[in-house]
Amino acid sequence: MTPATPSPSPARGPVDHEVRDQIVTAATGHFRLYGYEKTTVSDLARAIGFSKAYIYKFFGSKQAIGESICAACLRRIEADIRAAIDAVESPPEKLRRMFKAIVESSLRLCFGDRKLYDIAAAAAAGQWEVVDIHDRRIQEILLEILRQGRATGEFERKTPLDEAVAAIYLVMRPYLNPMLLQYGLDYAEEAPAKLSSLVLRSLSP
Amino acid sequence: MTPATPSPSPARGPVDHEVRDQIVTAATGHFRLYGYEKTTVSDLARAIGFSKAYIYKFFGSKQAIGESICAACLRRIEADIRAAIDAVESPPEKLRRMFKAIVESSLRLCFGDRKLYDIAAAAAAGQWEVVDIHDRRIQEILLEILRQGRATGEFERKTPLDEAVAAIYLVMRPYLNPMLLQYGLDYAEEAPAKLSSLVLRSLSP
Repeated sequence: MTPATPSPSPARGPVDHEVRDQIVTAATGHFRLYGYEKTTVSDLARAIGFSKAYIYKFFGSKQAIGESICAACLRRIEADIRAAIDAVESPPEKLRRMFKAIVESSLRLCFGDRKLYDIAAAAAAGQWEVVDIHDRRIQEILLEILRQGRATGEFERKTPLDEAVAAIYLVMRPYLNPMLLQYGLDYAEEAPAKLSSLVLRSLSP
Repeated sequence: MTPATPSPSPARGPVDHEVRDQIVTAATGHFRLYGYEKTTVSDLARAIGFSKAYIYKFFGSKQAIGESICAACLRRIEADIRAAIDAVESPPEKLRRMFKAIVESSLRLCFGDRKLYDIAAAAAAGQWEVVDIHDRRIQEILLEILRQGRATGEFERKTPLDEAVAAIYLVMRPYLNPMLLQYGLDYAEEAPAKLSSLVLRSLSP
């Protein structure tokens, strides 16, 4: 959240991260109306009332703004997952809730707002780093649940942990990635329960 | 494979299914060069040397030709899966081979020929019936393997069969559907082994 480029003027008004947040908020609103792909930094500058040069002081490119929006969106998905699993004690129940939260939160954030969906498409096509970071966080949460379940004796311990995490991540992936999720909308209702039951059977000691 | 429209002339040359096959073969070659989306029935007629009216006697629309090509493609995938599972006796090994064959055969047929990929895209977007038939056949093959594994005692019997089939189908789906597969190319190498191991753990008695 720290600014990438320090402000050149020592006597400045709002601090950098405030300006960055202001640009991101305005850009989100603009993309929501006109789409990410079709908007240029010049369009954005005009709409926000900043000069193009001023925007470039905070963001090196339109993609950098898109990445900030995308990162905020993915952090909300992670927060939703975290809230869902923290609400229960049992590791199997945590895993069920994680599946459900992934599908619900991804659907709401990626498809509730069709115009923002093209940021997700750009992120997937351009392999943005924020998406990799999100994938790693999901795998960390999975690892944490598996460790807890192994400690309580509810999950088997024969399969190497990293192998179990990688396989479950592959099962979750079509519901995490919006490009895949768009082709799974017909299954979004039944998938969390069916897949988490299958995964839990695979984890039984 | 029987023609949808009988030829109006009783004294005809080649039988209908031969003409249909001839049109499908020529259309496949044409789509491969120019793409499915960009080609009209008039273009096809000119390229094949048939009149447009003659083509329409055998196929009601360009989509009907596309569906025949798609169906042939899906039958080849099913034949590859069938050959892979018939080569071994053990149900767990059949399941492993099924996963591997799905990924390899789908990759080869859908992406080996980039220009034919837009038929798959049209099939997915238009929810063509041939795709539903393919999905049902895959589920039948799965059901057959699960039944065999339950009979030999290698698979558990507590989970209702239809639930187990539906869940495993959901795990396989991202590798069966070319629209999903295009976003899983990075995982195509590791997915069959990892996912079939997870599924086999879920099936252990």
